[in-house]
Amino acid sequence: MAALTQQKVVVVGGGMGGLASAMVLARLGASVTLYEHAPAFGEVGAGIQLGPNATRRLAAWGLLDETVARGFLPERLVLRDATTGQELTAQRLGADFVERYQAPYVVIHRSDLHAILHDAAAESGVELVVDTHVERIEQVQDRALVIMADGRVVDADAVVAADGLASASRDRIVGDQPVPSGYVAYRGTLPNDGEHGADVVAWLGPRCHFVQYPLRRGELLNMVAVFQSPAFLRGEVEWGGEDELDAAYDRCTPEVRQATTRLWRDRRWPMYDRNPTTNWGSGRVTLTGDAAHPMLQYLAQGACQALEDASALERHAAGAPGDWPATFAAFAGERQPRTARVQTTARTWGEVWHVDGVARLLRNELLRHRDTASYAYLDWLYGRQAGEAELITTTATGSSRA
Amino acid sequence: MAALTQQKVVVVGGGMGGLASAMVLARLGASVTLYEHAPAFGEVGAGIQLGPNATRRLAAWGLLDETVARGFLPERLVLRDATTGQELTAQRLGADFVERYQAPYVVIHRSDLHAILHDAAAESGVELVVDTHVERIEQVQDRALVIMADGRVVDADAVVAADGLASASRDRIVGDQPVPSGYVAYRGTLPNDGEHGADVVAWLGPRCHFVQYPLRRGELLNMVAVFQSPAFLRGEVEWGGEDELDAAYDRCTPEVRQATTRLWRDRRWPMYDRNPTTNWGSGRVTLTGDAAHPMLQYLAQGACQALEDASALERHAAGAPGDWPATFAAFAGERQPRTARVQTTARTWGEVWHVDGVARLLRNELLRHRDTASYAYLDWLYGRQAGEAELITTTATGSSRA
Repeated sequence: MAALTQQKVVVVGGGMGGLASAMVLARLGASVTLYEHAPAFGEVGAGIQLGPNATRRLAAWGLLDETVARGFLPERLVLRDATTGQELTAQRLGADFVERYQAPYVVIHRSDLHAILHDAAAESGVELVVDTHVERIEQVQDRALVIMADGRVVDADAVVAADGLASASRDRIVGDQPVPSGYVAYRGTLPNDGEHGADVVAWLGPRCHFVQYPLRRGELLNMVAVFQSPAFLRGEVEWGGEDELDAAYDRCTPEVRQATTRLWRDRRWPMYDRNPTTNWGSGRVTLTGDAAHPMLQYLAQGACQALEDASALERHAAGAPGDWPATFAAFAGERQPRTARVQTTARTWGEVWHVDGVARLLRNELLRHRDTASYAYLDWLYGRQAGEAELITTTATGSSRA
Repeated sequence: MAALTQQKVVVVGGGMGGLASAMVLARLGASVTLYEHAPAFGEVGAGIQLGPNATRRLAAWGLLDETVARGFLPERLVLRDATTGQELTAQRLGADFVERYQAPYVVIHRSDLHAILHDAAAESGVELVVDTHVERIEQVQDRALVIMADGRVVDADAVVAADGLASASRDRIVGDQPVPSGYVAYRGTLPNDGEHGADVVAWLGPRCHFVQYPLRRGELLNMVAVFQSPAFLRGEVEWGGEDELDAAYDRCTPEVRQATTRLWRDRRWPMYDRNPTTNWGSGRVTLTGDAAHPMLQYLAQGACQALEDASALERHAAGAPGDWPATFAAFAGERQPRTARVQTTARTWGEVWHVDGVARLLRNELLRHRDTASYAYLDWLYGRQAGEAELITTTATGSSRA
């Protein structure tokens, strides 16, 4: 477990991906410093969904029990038509699901998962530094130099750039731009009156959807509303405002329309991704997480893929200790095709959610006739990846579900 | 069999629906005269598909054996993606199908079916008159007066207006207009080199499709190409020209592109239907066939529904002999919901055939996973209708297929 002793690694960015990457490298013995631009660690947002591809990694890191303890184990993933309320299909998340994927499906407040990863990184010895703006990274003579906005330079053996969708690191490596989807999300949480039940429910409407599920052991109800902005379609710079929220659900059932009145109104999330790239850096620098593969949230895989990244980084770093060019090349080589598929599938799945007209009829017919005992649409995403380590410890959490 | 003796009936229009209606009323004993505007009887076009809902009626009238003898019994209905060539689904038309629907699926040259109905009408005693322009129909004191363009007036007990899509009778009864679909059909026949096989194959492409099947005992190959006209979308008066045909299939497989070069170029069929109406006439006058329910051809039901009409007219005329207001009210009351469903479903099915983008993915996924042993999508169309008489004679044709 001391494969990386004497290796100094800098992680840029203290989101889920940065924290997990820092944690795994510190556990391998590296001296890891993580720099976060914000004045404090934390996460904005509400609930986050963790498929078993993510919770298997959390289990391997010994973090699943706490994740489950602070989160919620939904009974089903349910898709409904937002204009009629009709249930289109449901995926049960009980014993069969957990057995197949060797881990449970968990929903958790983003701030809770972030805190778990933050504490685990700290306990693993990561030096966590806030309020620090990394301006750029330069590679000079087998060293990676991290240059701060205030002029300081930190010398490292390797740099993991986990600076998210708007990654300045990616700007220098790839030079591409985020792609606006024209869709905007509003979120919110409510005290849970229990009426919703124990399912993750997504109501699919024309150019809009609405998702609701319990959070924090069922104490809260999480809400996400996502809709296409007419102002964006008109080419306006400001788009996705409150006025559009009010109009976006007018074809939906009263249940959905009513729920959307209870969202937070003071903040919104215009949704962007980027096109997949094979260029995740070179030498001693790699992108990871959203910096490497920002994605639309339709598969709920943003954080999950960042955790997969950290797990793969852990394996490749242990496989070629201290040889960072080899580690990062193997890491990106493994992760790029996988994350590119998730990025592009998320785009398509979002289109499927938001169709109207005859496409809506086709989607509903397809979903209503889906074999609910089949995992054909899920295995590629939730199943064990080539190279993924076998779980040595099966968590009680995973096996206790009936 | 002489329920209608001394009843004088005029049928307007000598297409499939007019001929079949005239035939059944003549067989019930009525004195039937059919007036056709054209200088000779005949049909333009190429192949026509007859589902078992139509061939059951032909069997009941003793016309199925000749229809099969002059037509072709396809083995399967096959849907393929026109851009990849991939087979999406197939409906076998063999023994199970024939047993379920008590009649075979037959394809036949339009002119052959027209000749069969013409000869049957003539043999049943229908007076068949060409080159006669019926200007209008008026009801005066329990009589129906058929007023010709040349001033002649024919007095009748009842009038069946089977004057097709552009029905002048419907103009006076309903006053609506044909609805252009923006799609145009090109047709053609070729000597059959045998390479195509024994299936009815439809290649489904974005805003286009192409259908091919054997005809005339397999001697000919029938082709239909249907595509959306860009000129129509631009609002131009002339649309669907040859230049558009050449461009419409550019995303399709070489097989399809090659086939479309062999279509007839001297004639095209811009495709229209009308919105369903509950007003099929009153008193002693009724619309029937395309005059009552013109439809897009995506379910291949235009002629089939006209034959269903004639069969229902036969039953209701026999049930209230000489009481034409009661006969026609019962006829339209039975037929209107049925044909309206076929009209609207044909529109939707056409949309399904022509989708692009994510809707195409959904359509293909739905079709590829269809349970090919299930008749769930077919029973409503091909199955026995409420009120439809049991077939007394099961034709050898129907039971000889393996």
